[in-house]
Amino acid sequence: MMKLHYAPRTCALAVHIALEESGAPYELRKVDFSQREQTSAAYLAINPKGRVPALVTDRGVLTETPAMLAFIAQSYPDARLAPLDDPWQFAQLQAFNAYLCATVHVAHAHRVRGYRWADEPSAIEAMVRKAPEVVLACFELIERTMFKGPWVIGDEYTVADAYLFTLAQWWEVDQVDPRRVPKLADHRLRVNERPAVQRALSAERG
Amino acid sequence: MMKLHYAPRTCALAVHIALEESGAPYELRKVDFSQREQTSAAYLAINPKGRVPALVTDRGVLTETPAMLAFIAQSYPDARLAPLDDPWQFAQLQAFNAYLCATVHVAHAHRVRGYRWADEPSAIEAMVRKAPEVVLACFELIERTMFKGPWVIGDEYTVADAYLFTLAQWWEVDQVDPRRVPKLADHRLRVNERPAVQRALSAERG
Repeated sequence: MMKLHYAPRTCALAVHIALEESGAPYELRKVDFSQREQTSAAYLAINPKGRVPALVTDRGVLTETPAMLAFIAQSYPDARLAPLDDPWQFAQLQAFNAYLCATVHVAHAHRVRGYRWADEPSAIEAMVRKAPEVVLACFELIERTMFKGPWVIGDEYTVADAYLFTLAQWWEVDQVDPRRVPKLADHRLRVNERPAVQRALSAERG
Repeated sequence: MMKLHYAPRTCALAVHIALEESGAPYELRKVDFSQREQTSAAYLAINPKGRVPALVTDRGVLTETPAMLAFIAQSYPDARLAPLDDPWQFAQLQAFNAYLCATVHVAHAHRVRGYRWADEPSAIEAMVRKAPEVVLACFELIERTMFKGPWVIGDEYTVADAYLFTLAQWWEVDQVDPRRVPKLADHRLRVNERPAVQRALSAERG
Protein backbone atom coordinates (compact mmCIF):
# COMPACT_ATOMS: atom_id res chain seq x y z
CA MET A 1 0.00 0.00 0.00
CA MET A 2 1.23 3.52 -0.74
CA LYS A 3 2.22 5.67 2.18
CA LEU A 4 1.96 9.47 2.09
CA HIS A 5 4.36 11.37 4.31
CA TYR A 6 2.73 14.73 5.04
CA ALA A 7 2.55 17.58 7.48
CA PRO A 8 -0.59 19.61 8.20
CA ARG A 9 -0.97 22.98 6.49
CA THR A 10 1.57 22.11 3.78
CA CYS A 11 1.17 21.46 0.07
CA ALA A 12 0.97 17.75 0.92
CA LEU A 13 -2.76 18.34 1.27
CA ALA A 14 -3.05 18.47 -2.53
CA VAL A 15 -1.67 14.96 -2.86
CA HIS A 16 -3.74 13.79 0.09
CA ILE A 17 -6.91 15.04 -1.60
CA ALA A 18 -5.89 13.47 -4.92
CA LEU A 19 -5.41 10.12 -3.19
CA GLU A 20 -8.83 10.42 -1.56
CA GLU A 21 -10.42 11.31 -4.90
CA SER A 22 -8.63 8.46 -6.69
CA GLY A 23 -9.94 5.65 -4.52
CA ALA A 24 -6.40 4.31 -4.12
CA PRO A 25 -5.57 2.45 -0.93
CA TYR A 26 -2.96 4.37 1.05
CA GLU A 27 -1.91 5.21 4.54
CA LEU A 28 -0.86 8.50 6.09
CA ARG A 29 2.30 9.18 8.04
CA LYS A 30 2.61 12.58 9.73
CA VAL A 31 6.06 14.19 9.76
CA ASP A 32 6.39 16.26 12.92
CA PHE A 33 7.69 19.65 11.79
CA SER A 34 7.57 20.94 15.39
CA GLN A 35 10.36 18.45 16.17
CA ARG A 36 12.12 19.16 12.83
CA GLU A 37 11.51 15.52 11.94
CA GLN A 38 11.86 16.38 8.25
CA THR A 39 15.60 16.84 8.84
CA SER A 40 16.05 13.58 10.79
CA ALA A 41 18.27 10.88 9.35
CA ALA A 42 15.30 8.53 9.17
CA TYR A 43 13.24 10.94 7.10
CA LEU A 44 16.15 12.02 4.91
CA ALA A 45 16.59 8.36 4.02
CA ILE A 46 13.06 8.53 2.58
CA ASN A 47 13.31 12.00 1.05
CA PRO A 48 16.83 13.51 0.89
CA LYS A 49 15.25 16.90 0.17
CA GLY A 50 13.92 17.00 3.74
CA ARG A 51 10.48 18.11 2.65
CA VAL A 52 6.94 16.87 2.37
CA PRO A 53 5.06 15.43 0.63
CA ALA A 54 6.77 12.13 -0.17
CA LEU A 55 4.86 9.15 -1.51
CA VAL A 56 6.33 5.74 -0.79
CA THR A 57 5.21 3.15 -3.33
CA ASP A 58 6.21 -0.43 -4.03
CA ARG A 59 8.49 0.89 -6.77
CA GLY A 60 10.19 3.56 -4.70
CA VAL A 61 9.68 7.07 -3.38
CA LEU A 62 8.09 9.87 -5.38
CA THR A 63 8.44 13.56 -4.49
CA GLU A 64 7.39 16.90 -5.99
CA THR A 65 3.69 17.73 -5.86
CA PRO A 66 3.06 18.21 -9.61
CA ALA A 67 4.70 14.87 -10.39
CA MET A 68 2.72 13.11 -7.68
CA LEU A 69 -0.57 14.62 -8.85
CA ALA A 70 -0.02 13.52 -12.45
CA PHE A 71 1.10 10.09 -11.25
CA ILE A 72 -2.06 9.55 -9.19
CA ALA A 73 -4.24 10.72 -12.10
CA GLN A 74 -2.46 8.39 -14.55
CA SER A 75 -2.41 5.43 -12.15
CA TYR A 76 -6.14 5.65 -11.36
CA PRO A 77 -7.65 6.71 -14.69
CA ASP A 78 -11.18 5.69 -13.69
CA ALA A 79 -11.23 8.57 -11.20
CA ARG A 80 -10.86 10.99 -14.15
CA LEU A 81 -8.58 13.39 -12.30
CA ALA A 82 -6.80 14.67 -15.44
CA PRO A 83 -7.47 14.84 -19.20
CA LEU A 84 -5.24 11.85 -19.89
CA ASP A 85 -6.22 11.32 -23.52
CA ASP A 86 -5.42 14.80 -24.75
CA PRO A 87 -1.76 15.89 -24.48
CA TRP A 88 -2.72 19.54 -25.01
CA GLN A 89 -5.27 19.62 -22.21
CA PHE A 90 -2.95 17.59 -19.99
CA ALA A 91 -0.23 20.14 -20.70
CA GLN A 92 -2.52 22.99 -19.68
CA LEU A 93 -3.16 21.23 -16.38
CA GLN A 94 0.55 20.64 -15.94
CA ALA A 95 1.37 24.27 -16.72
CA PHE A 96 -1.07 25.37 -14.05
CA ASN A 97 0.45 23.02 -11.50
CA ALA A 98 3.97 24.13 -12.43
CA TYR A 99 2.99 27.75 -11.83
CA LEU A 100 1.58 26.85 -8.42
CA CYS A 101 4.72 24.91 -7.53
CA ALA A 102 7.45 27.18 -8.89
CA THR A 103 5.93 30.64 -8.52
CA VAL A 104 2.99 30.72 -6.09
CA HIS A 105 4.37 28.31 -3.49
CA VAL A 106 7.79 29.97 -3.81
CA ALA A 107 6.23 33.40 -3.24
CA HIS A 108 4.59 32.09 -0.07
CA ALA A 109 7.81 30.44 1.07
CA HIS A 110 9.52 33.83 1.27
CA ARG A 111 7.25 34.72 4.19
CA VAL A 112 8.05 31.59 6.17
CA ARG A 113 11.38 30.26 4.90
CA GLY A 114 13.41 33.24 3.70
CA TYR A 115 16.50 31.72 5.32
CA ARG A 116 16.72 29.46 2.30
CA TRP A 117 17.86 32.38 0.15
CA ALA A 118 19.59 34.88 2.48
CA ASP A 119 21.45 34.78 5.80
CA GLU A 120 20.95 38.31 7.15
CA PRO A 121 17.89 38.78 9.39
CA SER A 122 17.19 42.14 7.77
CA ALA A 123 17.01 40.51 4.33
CA ILE A 124 14.71 37.79 5.61
CA GLU A 125 12.48 40.48 7.14
CA ALA A 126 12.42 42.29 3.79
CA MET A 127 11.11 39.12 2.15
CA VAL A 128 8.45 38.75 4.84
CA ARG A 129 7.31 42.32 4.19
CA LYS A 130 7.00 41.87 0.44
CA ALA A 131 5.47 38.38 0.44
CA PRO A 132 1.78 39.41 0.74
CA GLU A 133 2.10 41.64 -2.33
CA VAL A 134 3.87 38.93 -4.34
CA VAL A 135 1.43 36.21 -3.35
CA LEU A 136 -1.58 38.40 -4.14
CA ALA A 137 -0.14 39.23 -7.57
CA CYS A 138 0.14 35.50 -8.31
CA PHE A 139 -3.47 34.77 -7.42
CA GLU A 140 -4.69 37.84 -9.31
CA LEU A 141 -2.85 36.58 -12.39
CA ILE A 142 -4.49 33.18 -11.97
CA GLU A 143 -7.91 34.79 -11.58
CA ARG A 144 -7.43 37.02 -14.60
CA THR A 145 -5.61 34.81 -17.09
CA MET A 146 -5.45 31.13 -16.12
CA PHE A 147 -8.56 30.01 -14.28
CA LYS A 148 -11.16 28.82 -16.80
CA GLY A 149 -14.08 28.03 -14.47
CA PRO A 150 -15.98 26.44 -12.99
CA TRP A 151 -12.87 24.31 -12.47
CA VAL A 152 -9.25 25.18 -13.19
CA ILE A 153 -9.09 23.81 -16.73
CA GLY A 154 -12.81 24.19 -17.49
CA ASP A 155 -15.71 21.80 -17.07
CA GLU A 156 -13.82 18.95 -15.43
CA TYR A 157 -12.56 18.81 -11.85
CA THR A 158 -8.91 17.68 -11.85
CA VAL A 159 -5.93 17.41 -9.51
CA ALA A 160 -5.19 21.07 -10.35
CA ASP A 161 -8.30 22.02 -8.38
CA ALA A 162 -7.03 20.17 -5.33
CA TYR A 163 -3.67 21.94 -5.67
CA LEU A 164 -5.17 25.41 -6.10
CA PHE A 165 -7.44 24.80 -3.11
CA THR A 166 -4.43 23.72 -1.07
CA LEU A 167 -2.40 26.86 -1.74
CA ALA A 168 -5.55 28.96 -1.19
CA GLN A 169 -5.56 27.63 2.39
CA TRP A 170 -2.69 30.04 2.99
CA TRP A 171 -4.57 33.20 1.93
CA GLU A 172 -5.32 34.27 5.47
CA VAL A 173 -1.75 33.93 6.75
CA ASP A 174 -0.46 35.59 3.56
CA GLN A 175 -2.95 38.46 3.97
CA VAL A 176 -4.66 37.77 0.65
CA ASP A 177 -8.14 39.30 0.68
CA PRO A 178 -10.48 36.79 -1.02
CA ARG A 179 -12.53 39.70 -2.38
CA ARG A 180 -9.59 40.50 -4.67
CA VAL A 181 -9.99 37.12 -6.36
CA PRO A 182 -13.73 36.43 -6.40
CA LYS A 183 -13.69 33.53 -8.87
CA LEU A 184 -11.00 31.78 -6.86
CA ALA A 185 -12.81 32.51 -3.60
CA ASP A 186 -15.92 30.83 -5.00
CA HIS A 187 -13.77 27.94 -6.20
CA ARG A 188 -12.27 27.51 -2.75
CA LEU A 189 -15.73 27.18 -1.24
CA ARG A 190 -16.86 24.65 -3.83
CA VAL A 191 -13.77 22.46 -3.52
CA ASN A 192 -14.18 22.55 0.23
CA GLU A 193 -17.60 20.91 -0.13
CA ARG A 194 -16.28 17.80 -1.85
CA PRO A 195 -16.48 14.69 0.34
CA ALA A 196 -12.91 13.65 -0.53
CA VAL A 197 -11.64 17.07 0.52
CA GLN A 198 -13.54 16.93 3.79
CA ARG A 199 -12.10 13.49 4.50
CA ALA A 200 -8.56 14.71 3.85
CA LEU A 201 -8.97 17.83 6.00
CA SER A 202 -10.49 15.79 8.78
CA ALA A 203 -7.66 13.26 8.72
CA GLU A 204 -5.06 16.04 8.94
CA ARG A 205 -6.83 17.61 11.90
CA GLY A 206 -7.25 14.27 13.65
CA MET B 1 3.51 25.46 -37.18
CA MET B 2 4.45 25.90 -33.53
CA LYS B 3 6.39 29.01 -32.58
CA LEU B 4 8.78 29.08 -29.62
CA HIS B 5 9.28 32.45 -27.95
CA TYR B 6 12.69 32.34 -26.30
CA ALA B 7 15.60 34.41 -25.11
CA PRO B 8 19.23 33.29 -25.17
CA ARG B 9 20.76 31.96 -21.94
CA THR B 10 17.35 31.25 -20.40
CA CYS B 11 15.59 27.99 -19.58
CA ALA B 12 13.87 28.25 -22.97
CA LEU B 13 16.90 26.34 -24.28
CA ALA B 14 15.50 23.15 -22.75
CA VAL B 15 12.32 23.43 -24.80
CA HIS B 16 14.30 24.45 -27.86
CA ILE B 17 16.44 21.31 -27.56
CA ALA B 18 13.36 19.14 -27.00
CA LEU B 19 11.79 20.53 -30.17
CA GLU B 20 14.99 19.80 -32.11
CA GLU B 21 15.12 16.27 -30.73
CA SER B 22 11.42 15.69 -31.48
CA GLY B 23 11.58 16.38 -35.18
CA ALA B 24 8.59 18.72 -34.86
CA PRO B 25 8.32 21.61 -37.30
CA TYR B 26 8.59 24.90 -35.43
CA GLU B 27 9.92 28.38 -35.73
CA LEU B 28 11.84 30.52 -33.28
CA ARG B 29 10.99 34.02 -32.14
CA LYS B 30 13.54 35.83 -30.00
CA VAL B 31 12.21 38.04 -27.20
CA ASP B 32 14.62 40.95 -26.70
CA PHE B 33 15.28 41.09 -22.96
CA SER B 34 17.71 44.01 -23.46
CA GLN B 35 14.69 46.09 -24.55
CA ARG B 36 12.47 44.51 -21.81
CA GLU B 37 10.31 43.16 -24.64
CA GLN B 38 8.97 40.47 -22.27
CA THR B 39 6.99 43.23 -20.51
CA SER B 40 5.61 44.78 -23.73
CA ALA B 41 1.86 44.73 -24.30
CA ALA B 42 2.37 42.63 -27.43
CA TYR B 43 4.28 39.95 -25.54
CA LEU B 44 2.02 40.02 -22.49
CA ALA B 45 -0.86 39.26 -24.86
CA ILE B 46 0.98 36.02 -25.67
CA ASN B 47 2.21 35.24 -22.17
CA PRO B 48 0.69 37.33 -19.36
CA LYS B 49 3.46 36.11 -17.06
CA GLY B 50 5.98 38.17 -19.03
CA ARG B 51 8.47 35.34 -19.21
CA VAL B 52 9.98 32.89 -21.64
CA PRO B 53 9.61 30.26 -22.92
CA ALA B 54 6.14 30.36 -24.46
CA LEU B 55 5.07 27.91 -27.12
CA VAL B 56 2.36 29.09 -29.49
CA THR B 57 0.43 26.19 -31.00
CA ASP B 58 -2.68 25.93 -33.14
CA ARG B 59 -4.63 25.22 -29.93
CA GLY B 60 -3.25 28.09 -27.90
CA VAL B 61 -0.23 29.14 -25.88
CA LEU B 62 1.61 26.81 -23.53
CA THR B 63 3.98 28.03 -20.80
CA GLU B 64 6.02 26.48 -17.98
CA THR B 65 9.05 24.46 -19.00
CA PRO B 66 8.13 21.13 -17.35
CA ALA B 67 4.66 21.22 -18.98
CA MET B 68 6.15 22.05 -22.38
CA LEU B 69 8.74 19.28 -22.12
CA ALA B 70 6.13 16.64 -21.28
CA PHE B 71 3.86 17.98 -24.02
CA ILE B 72 6.56 17.69 -26.67
CA ALA B 73 7.45 14.18 -25.51
CA GLN B 74 3.79 13.08 -25.58
CA SER B 75 3.04 14.78 -28.90
CA TYR B 76 6.01 13.20 -30.69
CA PRO B 77 6.20 9.73 -29.16
CA ASP B 78 8.40 8.35 -31.94
CA ALA B 79 11.25 10.54 -30.66
CA ARG B 80 11.15 8.60 -27.38
CA LEU B 81 11.85 11.63 -25.21
CA ALA B 82 10.06 10.30 -22.11
CA PRO B 83 8.94 6.91 -20.72
CA LEU B 84 5.36 7.45 -21.84
CA ASP B 85 4.10 3.91 -21.21
CA ASP B 86 5.11 3.70 -17.56
CA PRO B 87 3.42 6.20 -15.20
CA TRP B 88 6.00 5.50 -12.49
CA GLN B 89 9.00 6.22 -14.70
CA PHE B 90 7.21 9.21 -16.22
CA ALA B 91 6.58 10.49 -12.68
CA GLN B 92 10.28 10.15 -11.85
CA LEU B 93 11.11 12.26 -14.89
CA GLN B 94 8.47 14.78 -13.91
CA ALA B 95 9.73 14.95 -10.32
CA PHE B 96 13.22 15.70 -11.62
CA ASN B 97 11.90 18.46 -13.88
CA ALA B 98 9.79 19.91 -11.06
CA TYR B 99 12.87 20.10 -8.85
CA LEU B 100 14.79 21.92 -11.59
CA CYS B 101 11.90 24.35 -12.12
CA ALA B 102 10.83 25.07 -8.56
CA THR B 103 14.09 24.74 -6.61
CA VAL B 104 17.18 24.93 -8.86
CA HIS B 105 15.95 27.62 -11.23
CA VAL B 106 14.51 29.55 -8.27
CA ALA B 107 17.86 29.35 -6.45
CA HIS B 108 19.57 30.80 -9.53
CA ALA B 109 16.92 33.50 -9.89
CA HIS B 110 17.89 34.95 -6.51
CA ARG B 111 21.21 36.00 -8.00
CA VAL B 112 19.69 37.80 -10.96
CA ARG B 113 16.10 38.68 -10.03
CA GLY B 114 16.00 39.15 -6.28
CA TYR B 115 13.73 42.18 -6.79
CA ARG B 116 10.90 39.71 -7.23
CA TRP B 117 10.94 38.92 -3.51
CA ALA B 118 12.30 42.03 -1.74
CA ASP B 119 12.48 45.76 -2.37
CA GLU B 120 15.50 46.84 -0.32
CA PRO B 121 18.82 46.83 -2.23
CA SER B 122 20.59 45.40 0.82
CA ALA B 123 18.21 42.43 0.85
CA ILE B 124 18.70 41.82 -2.86
CA GLU B 125 22.46 41.94 -2.32
CA ALA B 126 22.11 39.39 0.48
CA MET B 127 20.38 37.03 -1.95
CA VAL B 128 23.12 37.56 -4.52
CA ARG B 129 25.74 36.66 -1.91
CA LYS B 130 24.02 33.45 -0.87
CA ALA B 131 22.97 32.24 -4.33
CA PRO B 132 26.18 30.38 -5.26
CA GLU B 133 25.96 28.29 -2.07
CA VAL B 134 22.26 27.52 -2.62
CA VAL B 135 22.71 26.64 -6.28
CA LEU B 136 25.68 24.39 -5.52
CA ALA B 137 23.72 22.57 -2.82
CA CYS B 138 20.98 21.85 -5.37
CA PHE B 139 23.35 20.34 -7.91
CA GLU B 140 25.16 18.35 -5.22
CA LEU B 141 21.81 16.88 -4.14
CA ILE B 142 21.06 15.96 -7.76
CA GLU B 143 24.52 14.37 -8.14
CA ARG B 144 24.19 12.42 -4.89
CA THR B 145 20.53 11.34 -4.84
CA MET B 146 18.67 11.91 -8.10
CA PHE B 147 20.89 11.43 -11.13
CA LYS B 148 20.81 7.77 -12.20
CA GLY B 149 23.32 7.81 -15.06
CA PRO B 150 24.31 7.74 -17.78
CA TRP B 151 21.18 9.85 -18.32
CA VAL B 152 18.96 11.49 -15.73
CA ILE B 153 16.47 8.65 -15.30
CA GLY B 154 18.84 5.86 -16.32
CA ASP B 155 19.54 4.27 -19.68
CA GLU B 156 17.31 6.48 -21.80
CA TYR B 157 17.96 10.07 -22.83
CA THR B 158 14.85 12.17 -22.12
CA VAL B 159 13.71 15.78 -21.99
CA ALA B 160 15.03 15.86 -18.40
CA ASP B 161 18.55 15.65 -19.82
CA ALA B 162 17.92 18.69 -21.98
CA TYR B 163 16.58 20.56 -18.95
CA LEU B 164 19.47 19.61 -16.66
CA PHE B 165 21.95 20.58 -19.39
CA THR B 166 20.18 23.93 -19.76
CA LEU B 167 20.41 24.87 -16.08
CA ALA B 168 24.01 23.61 -16.02
CA GLN B 169 24.79 26.34 -18.56
CA TRP B 170 24.57 28.74 -15.60
CA TRP B 171 27.25 27.01 -13.49
CA GLU B 172 29.96 29.48 -14.41
CA VAL B 173 27.91 32.61 -13.65
CA ASP B 174 26.64 30.98 -10.45
CA GLN B 175 30.21 30.04 -9.43
CA VAL B 176 29.49 26.31 -9.37
CA ASP B 177 32.75 24.39 -9.69
CA PRO B 178 32.07 21.43 -12.03
CA ARG B 179 34.58 19.35 -10.04
CA ARG B 180 32.09 19.34 -7.16
CA VAL B 181 29.57 17.48 -9.34
CA PRO B 182 31.66 15.16 -11.53
CA LYS B 183 28.81 12.98 -12.82
CA LEU B 184 26.84 16.05 -13.84
CA ALA B 185 29.93 17.63 -15.39
CA ASP B 186 30.40 14.51 -17.53
CA HIS B 187 26.71 14.60 -18.40
CA ARG B 188 26.97 18.22 -19.49
CA LEU B 189 29.76 17.33 -21.89
CA ARG B 190 27.86 14.38 -23.35
CA VAL B 191 24.62 16.29 -23.86
CA ASN B 192 26.59 19.05 -25.51
CA GLU B 193 27.76 16.59 -28.19
CA ARG B 194 24.26 15.75 -29.39
CA PRO B 195 23.49 17.13 -32.85
CA ALA B 196 20.10 18.48 -31.76
CA VAL B 197 21.75 20.35 -28.90
CA GLN B 198 24.38 21.82 -31.18
CA ARG B 199 21.67 22.98 -33.59
CA ALA B 200 19.74 24.66 -30.80
CA LEU B 201 22.82 26.38 -29.36
CA SER B 202 23.85 27.52 -32.81
CA ALA B 203 20.41 28.96 -33.56
CA GLU B 204 20.41 30.91 -30.29
CA ARG B 205 23.85 32.36 -31.01
CA GLY B 206 22.90 33.24 -34.59
